[in-house]
Amino acid sequence: MSGRLIGVGVGPGDPELMTLKAVRALHEADVVAFFAKEGNGSHARATACAHFRIGTEELPLFYPVTTEAHRHDAAYRTAITGFYDRSAQAVAAHLDAGRTVAVLSEGDPLFYGSYMHLHVRLAARYAAEVIPGVTGMSGCWSQAGTPIAQGDDVLCVLPGTLEEDELARRLGDADAAIIMKVGRNLPKIRRALASAGRLERALYVERGTMEGGHALPLTERDEAPAPYFAIVLVPGWEARS
Amino acid sequence: MSGRLIGVGVGPGDPELMTLKAVRALHEADVVAFFAKEGNGSHARATACAHFRIGTEELPLFYPVTTEAHRHDAAYRTAITGFYDRSAQAVAAHLDAGRTVAVLSEGDPLFYGSYMHLHVRLAARYAAEVIPGVTGMSGCWSQAGTPIAQGDDVLCVLPGTLEEDELARRLGDADAAIIMKVGRNLPKIRRALASAGRLERALYVERGTMEGGHALPLTERDEAPAPYFAIVLVPGWEARS
Repeated sequence: MSGRLIGVGVGPGDPELMTLKAVRALHEADVVAFFAKEGNGSHARATACAHFRIGTEELPLFYPVTTEAHRHDAAYRTAITGFYDRSAQAVAAHLDAGRTVAVLSEGDPLFYGSYMHLHVRLAARYAAEVIPGVTGMSGCWSQAGTPIAQGDDVLCVLPGTLEEDELARRLGDADAAIIMKVGRNLPKIRRALASAGRLERALYVERGTMEGGHALPLTERDEAPAPYFAIVLVPGWEARS
Repeated sequence: MSGRLIGVGVGPGDPELMTLKAVRALHEADVVAFFAKEGNGSHARATACAHFRIGTEELPLFYPVTTEAHRHDAAYRTAITGFYDRSAQAVAAHLDAGRTVAVLSEGDPLFYGSYMHLHVRLAARYAAEVIPGVTGMSGCWSQAGTPIAQGDDVLCVLPGTLEEDELARRLGDADAAIIMKVGRNLPKIRRALASAGRLERALYVERGTMEGGHALPLTERDEAPAPYFAIVLVPGWEARS
């Protein structure tokens, strides 16, 4: 009899923002798998590890060495697809042996999470369950203490990798927006917000709910590249009542 | 010395999807407040009440009797604004007496939640903290077991109350979409999805993570009005890799 696959959302970073269900899944797991970068550790593991049982087998899945700049390359796509295939095989070997495998995911597993690369390869063949988690963006607007959307607001989640004109167009067409993948795109994001008339309203949030987490108006943020855990928020609900 | 205000996200409905931090906040609260409809109880209270301390004071905040049809009326707006003002005063009286007040919120407090009406009235005057929660939409795509967005996908959250043309335009302009406030808008939502060429991909999810929760292709759903806990999802990540 095969084991179970469980995608476990560990939330935005504060270990206390794990759900009771995620904690239970870790207590029940025979194997805990997580994606990691060689030498960099795994944020999801650091968030969740206090709940691993003694003796739980850990299965780190190390990303091949690449840079974001290459992500539209054919060579990169072949490498990353191969990596997800091999990762799924490594998880499947445990499932075939009847072990329950919990796969950690920062935030929510099915919302821009790496777990879904395993899910689409394995969920048809094995019993699979997904435990939703608090997203990184919820962590960020809570850190900022800012209502993000209300009533009939249209909210858009936008990658900072979009072209400037496209970003500006979409920002002008939404009541509320979340811009992810900030990194080196910060100057472009700022220009797009200005074109859309939304710069004054935008907030920059770094490490929401984590040690050192903070929020400030984007107009007060310098142009240095943003770290991995950073997003830009444009709160909606302009006609508060 | 004034008490603390805590906005507590209780998640999408499954009590096990509460966070450790939400549970701790309820253990520490002197007063637990929640919005409710007369005669209908409170979903947030039902989700969280196992964690109330014995002796915790409950502060139900009963919505005035209205219908959604009136929500753009001046009379409705006056009534609801007065209700939120009085609710904030009732909470403030406890804070002034030095009590910690936890305000329950379905899903995440700052994401389309009623809690924010109290937050904007009280957070400048009292120590306030928001504990993010798993959103209802995360609960729904986890119930469906469907990746919702990945990589550079643009995701939009749309109210089903939008005009049909506007809904169709926005659905055609996003990689992934969540349609909330389904209710009696289901036939219109279906037509808008068809115009945008997205109907075949859409899923209908009811009571995600709750007792009786289920998901099905929207094309297999009849035209009967949807209950309160229902949303329509259009998953992105069309070029899976």
